[in-house]
Amino acid sequence: MPRSRRQRKGSAVAPSDEEVLARLEKLGKSVAEQIIKGKPPYLEIPVRTLSNTIWDEKRKILVLGPRKARRELFDIGESKKFMQTVLMLSLIVKARREGDYPTIRDLYYTGKHTIHYKDLHGRTRSEETWNDQRESNAVIQDIEVATGLLREHMGIMHDAKGKIVGNMVIRSKGYEIDLSRMGSGAYAVPPNVDKLEIVRVDADYVLVVEKDAIFERLNEEEFWKKHNCVLITGKGQPDRSTRRMVRRLWEEFGLPVYILTDADSYGFYIYSVYRSGSISLSYESERLATPEARFLGVTVSDIDRYKIPKNYIIKATDRDVKRAKELMNYPWFRESKDWMNELKLFIKKKEKIEIEALSGHGFKFLSHNYIPEKLRKGEWIV
Amino acid sequence: MPRSRRQRKGSAVAPSDEEVLARLEKLGKSVAEQIIKGKPPYLEIPVRTLSNTIWDEKRKILVLGPRKARRELFDIGESKKFMQTVLMLSLIVKARREGDYPTIRDLYYTGKHTIHYKDLHGRTRSEETWNDQRESNAVIQDIEVATGLLREHMGIMHDAKGKIVGNMVIRSKGYEIDLSRMGSGAYAVPPNVDKLEIVRVDADYVLVVEKDAIFERLNEEEFWKKHNCVLITGKGQPDRSTRRMVRRLWEEFGLPVYILTDADSYGFYIYSVYRSGSISLSYESERLATPEARFLGVTVSDIDRYKIPKNYIIKATDRDVKRAKELMNYPWFRESKDWMNELKLFIKKKEKIEIEALSGHGFKFLSHNYIPEKLRKGEWIV
Repeated sequence: MPRSRRQRKGSAVAPSDEEVLARLEKLGKSVAEQIIKGKPPYLEIPVRTLSNTIWDEKRKILVLGPRKARRELFDIGESKKFMQTVLMLSLIVKARREGDYPTIRDLYYTGKHTIHYKDLHGRTRSEETWNDQRESNAVIQDIEVATGLLREHMGIMHDAKGKIVGNMVIRSKGYEIDLSRMGSGAYAVPPNVDKLEIVRVDADYVLVVEKDAIFERLNEEEFWKKHNCVLITGKGQPDRSTRRMVRRLWEEFGLPVYILTDADSYGFYIYSVYRSGSISLSYESERLATPEARFLGVTVSDIDRYKIPKNYIIKATDRDVKRAKELMNYPWFRESKDWMNELKLFIKKKEKIEIEALSGHGFKFLSHNYIPEKLRKGEWIV
Repeated sequence: MPRSRRQRKGSAVAPSDEEVLARLEKLGKSVAEQIIKGKPPYLEIPVRTLSNTIWDEKRKILVLGPRKARRELFDIGESKKFMQTVLMLSLIVKARREGDYPTIRDLYYTGKHTIHYKDLHGRTRSEETWNDQRESNAVIQDIEVATGLLREHMGIMHDAKGKIVGNMVIRSKGYEIDLSRMGSGAYAVPPNVDKLEIVRVDADYVLVVEKDAIFERLNEEEFWKKHNCVLITGKGQPDRSTRRMVRRLWEEFGLPVYILTDADSYGFYIYSVYRSGSISLSYESERLATPEARFLGVTVSDIDRYKIPKNYIIKATDRDVKRAKELMNYPWFRESKDWMNELKLFIKKKEKIEIEALSGHGFKFLSHNYIPEKLRKGEWIV
């Protein structure tokens, strides 16, 4: 694979603070205007159900379909959700106006209170605004799809799992940060990746590793320097920020993206999330998915190809097999002959292995043989 | 609290690569010498059981007692453990000689193989070197106590959870890294903290936050800059690297350390781990514990003091209460009147709250009121 130097003008792709506030206020104003006009207020929210999720053949991602739902205050089945949405919207607008960065948990607490009211029979009743963070998170998602903003754009904080190193320079809060000068440590990816400006990248590809310990090892060996790549981990099931970072490196800098996980349904699913996102949150995919991501390994067929000793092989559980069968129904797996072969082999042999099983061939095998050889021979699957 | 500028000469406290290899080889050579002399080989390993764990009143940490055990090859009850230890030692020595950085999982796999042998009756039998990573991890711990090295010193990699920002400069692999210039991101603490040189620290204290999302929020607000502190998180139950980092900032730079967690037994236990380590791994404490760490909150008495609304309070489970009762037996809690009061209150009221419950007083309450006021009034407990 030829090494080519790619450069692109620095970019930060987040909507401006003004733009974010304007879009949020617009949603709120639409309700206020209905009320002023004496009309029953409603919110129009794109439907996030599976039935309104469409596989976009051309872009190779799942997208939300055109269906929208009216959430009406005076519809008894919708009124609570309507009020929850307006409540959450007001909290987020307040935070943006005052420059606060609440977490999703902060928003849950701040919005949580008890509403006392009298019912038709004059009895005093009470109702919680929400009882569970799932309820408050769901309306954050509704506000995301209604405004076309990610929650990160709205300054909402959450855990951020990603770590990254490599020949690249970013700019954040005015500081230029050189990700090749982190020593034994790494740059911890912030929640809102879109506020980062990627000043320049000088790498041939992005290597995403499932496991943090493998990341630490490859970083300590300076694998990314020797092989001129960007090394990143999302620590298992990746969070949105790590996925967004990978997506930006692919989309804006044209870097091929290779994913390295254990050979089991959980690892395959991690690839799937980087590749296409989750089916239930398809609206994220347009910004978070990397539809050309390549699965470098470990594959089920590697067990034979790399002569993995019998006592390194772990028996797949019924749950693993069930999960693999589910993956076979995902459009991006279904349309890939290589993936269908791998998944069928997994289901047939019921064998899984971890990345670390390759260490049976020596501690250096992963970095000196496995990864470079797979890349050179083009032995990835998509 | 007066702001004082503290400076200390740069330091990296890891034993040198030569020293590490020499200590490991010395252990191996002791076995070889016994064999050459025709004596039954044994290893002498400090006993890591609770009965050999001593509460050091003066240093306020748990330490290993003087008891050592002989692990003999020709003792049928010890021979497997003896062989496991020698096997692991050989793998670690090999890795150090060849400059490899295996993970604990790599070591498990590399050492895992089947030994075939004939028993007294001539029957062919087989035995795995180890069946479970707990077995291989246990002998790594034995090698740690036998050599006085942490596994990090031996170049063994593992997950590293910590993130840090603040007015401090470190040096790693020759690069100077300024932790006040990480923008919205942070510096991800590497596994082997002792290899970092802390060039300078200009901060008044260290604030350790349990939750990553709170860390992200305080970092985005630049709390550490406004309050001249070092901000660090170990993401829940901290790993060894985060604890080692906190310890170094306290020990080498004399910084007071404040811990902020949820008000529940899990949060109290997290404080306990930073403060004194775990009882079962007392040998780590001498290097990882921060015996003067202060618990800033959230305390059980804060529920009243800060008028936390009823519907923010979570009912403690039986397990929470059981855990709190266990904590009351730990020497560092038992000897603290304040802690005993808090734990009794928790057990009596059976109420817990999260840090985020403070957001009921506004998103800024935590950073603008709660933390600074507690520090100013000296309202922490130890």
